[in-house]
Amino acid sequence: MGGSTIGSAFHVVTFGESHGPAVGVVIDGVKPGLALNVDVIRAELARRRPGTSDLVSPRREPDMPEILSGVFEGRTTGAPICIVIRNVDADPGEYQAVADLFRPGHGDISWFAKYGIRDWRGGGRQSGRETVGRVAAGAVAREIIGRAGMSVRGHVVEIAGISAPSAANHAVDWAAVESSPVRCGDPVAGAAMADAIREAASSGESVGGIVEVVAAGVPAGLGEPVFGKLDAELARALMSIGAVKGVEIGEGFNAARLRGSDMVDEMAGGDFLSNHAGGILAGVSNGMPVVCRIAVKPTPTVGHELRTVDIDGNDVVFSRDGRSDPCICPRIVPVAEAMVAIVLADSYMSQQAVR
Amino acid sequence: MGGSTIGSAFHVVTFGESHGPAVGVVIDGVKPGLALNVDVIRAELARRRPGTSDLVSPRREPDMPEILSGVFEGRTTGAPICIVIRNVDADPGEYQAVADLFRPGHGDISWFAKYGIRDWRGGGRQSGRETVGRVAAGAVAREIIGRAGMSVRGHVVEIAGISAPSAANHAVDWAAVESSPVRCGDPVAGAAMADAIREAASSGESVGGIVEVVAAGVPAGLGEPVFGKLDAELARALMSIGAVKGVEIGEGFNAARLRGSDMVDEMAGGDFLSNHAGGILAGVSNGMPVVCRIAVKPTPTVGHELRTVDIDGNDVVFSRDGRSDPCICPRIVPVAEAMVAIVLADSYMSQQAVR
Amino acid sequence: MGGSTIGSAFHVVTFGESHGPAVGVVIDGVKPGLALNVDVIRAELARRRPGTSDLVSPRREPDMPEILSGVFEGRTTGAPICIVIRNVDADPGEYQAVADLFRPGHGDISWFAKYGIRDWRGGGRQSGRETVGRVAAGAVAREIIGRAGMSVRGHVVEIAGISAPSAANHAVDWAAVESSPVRCGDPVAGAAMADAIREAASSGESVGGIVEVVAAGVPAGLGEPVFGKLDAELARALMSIGAVKGVEIGEGFNAARLRGSDMVDEMAGGDFLSNHAGGILAGVSNGMPVVCRIAVKPTPTVGHELRTVDIDGNDVVFSRDGRSDPCICPRIVPVAEAMVAIVLADSYMSQQAVR
Amino acid sequence: MGGSTIGSAFHVVTFGESHGPAVGVVIDGVKPGLALNVDVIRAELARRRPGTSDLVSPRREPDMPEILSGVFEGRTTGAPICIVIRNVDADPGEYQAVADLFRPGHGDISWFAKYGIRDWRGGGRQSGRETVGRVAAGAVAREIIGRAGMSVRGHVVEIAGISAPSAANHAVDWAAVESSPVRCGDPVAGAAMADAIREAASSGESVGGIVEVVAAGVPAGLGEPVFGKLDAELARALMSIGAVKGVEIGEGFNAARLRGSDMVDEMAGGDFLSNHAGGILAGVSNGMPVVCRIAVKPTPTVGHELRTVDIDGNDVVFSRDGRSDPCICPRIVPVAEAMVAIVLADSYMSQQAVR
Repeated sequence: MGGSTIGSAFHVVTFGESHGPAVGVVIDGVKPGLALNVDVIRAELARRRPGTSDLVSPRREPDMPEILSGVFEGRTTGAPICIVIRNVDADPGEYQAVADLFRPGHGDISWFAKYGIRDWRGGGRQSGRETVGRVAAGAVAREIIGRAGMSVRGHVVEIAGISAPSAANHAVDWAAVESSPVRCGDPVAGAAMADAIREAASSGESVGGIVEVVAAGVPAGLGEPVFGKLDAELARALMSIGAVKGVEIGEGFNAARLRGSDMVDEMAGGDFLSNHAGGILAGVSNGMPVVCRIAVKPTPTVGHELRTVDIDGNDVVFSRDGRSDPCICPRIVPVAEAMVAIVLADSYMSQQAVR
Repeated sequence: MGGSTIGSAFHVVTFGESHGPAVGVVIDGVKPGLALNVDVIRAELARRRPGTSDLVSPRREPDMPEILSGVFEGRTTGAPICIVIRNVDADPGEYQAVADLFRPGHGDISWFAKYGIRDWRGGGRQSGRETVGRVAAGAVAREIIGRAGMSVRGHVVEIAGISAPSAANHAVDWAAVESSPVRCGDPVAGAAMADAIREAASSGESVGGIVEVVAAGVPAGLGEPVFGKLDAELARALMSIGAVKGVEIGEGFNAARLRGSDMVDEMAGGDFLSNHAGGILAGVSNGMPVVCRIAVKPTPTVGHELRTVDIDGNDVVFSRDGRSDPCICPRIVPVAEAMVAIVLADSYMSQQAVR
Repeated sequence: MGGSTIGSAFHVVTFGESHGPAVGVVIDGVKPGLALNVDVIRAELARRRPGTSDLVSPRREPDMPEILSGVFEGRTTGAPICIVIRNVDADPGEYQAVADLFRPGHGDISWFAKYGIRDWRGGGRQSGRETVGRVAAGAVAREIIGRAGMSVRGHVVEIAGISAPSAANHAVDWAAVESSPVRCGDPVAGAAMADAIREAASSGESVGGIVEVVAAGVPAGLGEPVFGKLDAELARALMSIGAVKGVEIGEGFNAARLRGSDMVDEMAGGDFLSNHAGGILAGVSNGMPVVCRIAVKPTPTVGHELRTVDIDGNDVVFSRDGRSDPCICPRIVPVAEAMVAIVLADSYMSQQAVR
Repeated sequence: MGGSTIGSAFHVVTFGESHGPAVGVVIDGVKPGLALNVDVIRAELARRRPGTSDLVSPRREPDMPEILSGVFEGRTTGAPICIVIRNVDADPGEYQAVADLFRPGHGDISWFAKYGIRDWRGGGRQSGRETVGRVAAGAVAREIIGRAGMSVRGHVVEIAGISAPSAANHAVDWAAVESSPVRCGDPVAGAAMADAIREAASSGESVGGIVEVVAAGVPAGLGEPVFGKLDAELARALMSIGAVKGVEIGEGFNAARLRGSDMVDEMAGGDFLSNHAGGILAGVSNGMPVVCRIAVKPTPTVGHELRTVDIDGNDVVFSRDGRSDPCICPRIVPVAEAMVAIVLADSYMSQQAVR
């Protein structure tokens, strides 16, 4: 029950702290015979890596994965796959100053309440660096779902109040997304988002936004009824990403304002005529693209002085110490994709067991 | 993996179809020594029961629970508790007309893709009637968390675009909520919501809304890091409710538009000065009230003709058949509360294992 | 974690106490489309029912199952199946005398240490009556594995030191097993066993024995490596039956005395030439019959005075109170078969997810 | 469901192949604040290491563990602990000859049926080398249960038909066990066992035996009723060790021949007067030592020619290739201890959740 575990048929356990020796993942329940090599994983890790532009954290990590098990002669064997990524640019010394206080807006205080002990080096296990393990697992999950015709892609649809079109009603230029430093395929909106991030950073602030992930090629029938609904599993997986405060599927919160007739996706000739549902009906995929959006809060590490308490309960004032991202949205895109891929791989394998 | 299972330490399995003999739940992992009797469960079930006003489904179910196991001399023994509620007002005949078609907006088509077989009687397992099992389990969960000082309450904060204040920044009159037919504590907004529902119903339409659930007295330290975060488990649990299309915690989607300094909850004198986080930091409760909101779609069973297909793939037109709710929000309140209580009971018991 | 749960893909939760209103089971994860009716379940329950001969407990239970969910028009729908069996001949009054003491050899004392509360009516949840839920689940499991060509049969191979041939090296007359009151297919050994039971009963004693279960038609490839080995899952499932103190597979404890060359099953023409392994190699089925044996202790409810303590810790003397079996082996046969069938159904469904 | 996972509250996943880069383990759900360092783990690994005498495999592995996560300043933080042990003396070349055939008595054929692919290097994941991960996890489990006053020790009670006294009725000299090359505390029996192993090895044979594990200080109340009984979990955990074909608790198979009065452990003055039950009543610990025994088969890698088939189904003859143990019993002792410690740690943490 330690919490670092997700998935049943495709069972993932991640490990590692921001400033410990390494981060990584073990996946138990991988299909045998998948082509898999370290380059596939490295390519995904590169998409979430820090230090790639002035819009993200300057920490420089090569993020070179090593596959310790489960692959033989370039193919998965069915045995657990362990992937380890060493931390290279980890300087715990820069966190010495926060060893005795609870950084405002971080989980320092809640985790201390939970464990009665803390690893203060860069947030330890709390750090966004744990998402390296998620992305590595997602790379393996993509191989499984890819063989079944599914693909998962994400993009930024809002930063600091500047919005770009949803893939639900607009053709997204996915190549443009990948070449955009904010991962927005709309060049005008993307440029404005980048400006907003720089403006916030220059004033010691951070900004939030909305990331959308779309899974195409999802066959009808994935997801388990009642508590194991596909959208429920996606919500859990996406909400588990550090900065996420909301998850929606299809029309999401907008559905609260629609009338029944406008929410229903009618059918003709065997096809759905719309996708208000976001590809999921009563918790089970209906063959349409699965569309999820997540609300990403602004990172709490800002340059302003904020009031907090130390571990003895004394009032103290804190301002940023340590490297951080003024907007985490671009780097969350590959993490959110990984989570969707993990859920789909698990659902797909589970569905094989039923039929 | 059948999906009707939730929770680890407090392990819940529900069962039953809308028009089968019964619905119910088994809970494996109940703490021993809790006072529990059938009246406590009946009282909770009465809160979600249909047929109580002109705003909800006219189906008349007494929802009389029977406790089959796990309770002796008025106390839980630690053994699994099975609670069964017989279906009384179940008339499958009224669904004969939909036996061969996929009702638009329902999971008929996706579940058929999953299972290759269907129980067309009132949606079978898809029906909202399965939530009876959730509410019964929630009643037991409330006993566990109540002993630990936690309470869970919900209310409607929006229907058909008419909004009422959030508990996050307004004192809610909970007694007024319970006496309101729309479960809104604000009398003006509540009356307008009721009018909007009646207006929609009279034109054969349905409307959606937003339900908020607040858990008070949650001790700091609940929730497991990474994938098992408290907000992730809440998101899964709440998104698993039939009509829910979005979940948010604390500021939720609004967080996407805030700056870092405005999102952080500062502290002084050992207390948080605000609750933008909604009681959860880095996935672990921080001692503040846990605040969740869910987006509820309008029910798909409307009076208008909608295009769909039959099980042979032929185009057909369908309009409402069977009893339904023009707005499900009021009846979702006790269900959402139950899901939050279940998650908290499970998290609380899991945390005991760690320390 | 309450313990009344087994299986992953085929997920079983049992409930109910000896002298409560009912016993039963919910199975979440049943394949859809299986033919299933109440007679199939009743027939299996009849095989473990008490009151059928002078060799077993005189309690008279009709064991009439009711299927509350998951079956529609005679077929499974994929939804959870709840099966309830009412307790009819439950007379808690006869246990009043043991309400305040720990019966010797029973779990009264250990369960009280666990829960701090007890249901003293006939052992409550401890009672062998909980196996009704196992047998009902096993009946459903048999439908799944039966479709895949597997069958499970058990018989008594030893009682009170009197042994009968193992199916591993002797053709068992399964019809004779079923008509034998001790479930032994060898008429001479069976008669001696029956005499030994009567002799023990007449002197207020009970006797133990060994039950063997054989699964035929098990395809090669079932079982998960390392901790989830097929033999490991079988060992857990079989050891979980109340009176079982040992489990062995194939040669079992005899393997400790063999030399390597004598333990290996050689192959020729694609076939194994022997089955010392009992159908499982490195935890995975090899296509040969799976052979398990369990050691069944004599029931602790005897007519002699035995020293024990009451719940206040005072020394007391106890002799039998309540109905009991002088030898539980014949009635354990269908329970052990059910456990093997449950494990095979789960393994089979899990294996579908992998390939 | 990949099978390399065990435990709920104390959740263990192992990984690694005999001749891959490394073997190891991740434990999710470790209590925070435990003192833990690499030396503790190394000491346990040294107890199962090959190459330590002429009675075991000559493979030379230093088995140097590295802790990658979950420990900070010498204490566990509650985060997952990953421990990696590099394979050093791995020469896959020596297995090239078996790349295309199924070694007799090994899982090569059953695993190939399962996965359709194989890692033929020294058995890959099948190899006993995977037990390194178990022993590392066991070292962590010992810290948890040790704090609660529990200890776990094992010894060899039979090899090649030569038996030594059980700890159930004889005081074992545990120091003598550890200094004995066969891990038998009885010097006469131990010497005879060693002779028997050498004799078997000299004729190209292998021998089996029986290992006993005793857990002392186990508080009453551990274990979950019905399927999650403590003895059931122990049986699963112990049967999951590669060469094990049988598991028994307390009197075990001998219980089949006892009369009820002789099996019951009477009580006086609050104490049990005997321990036929092996410390477990109705699946829950009763405060007496927990006594388990496992039947270990002779290893199948012998010097004699044995008939088998190749992966194309052709008949072939095989004799030993690769390093092996003529008797695996001495090296299984620390593995079996580790499995018992893992089960107890998980049961102990689970029990904390209940009360």
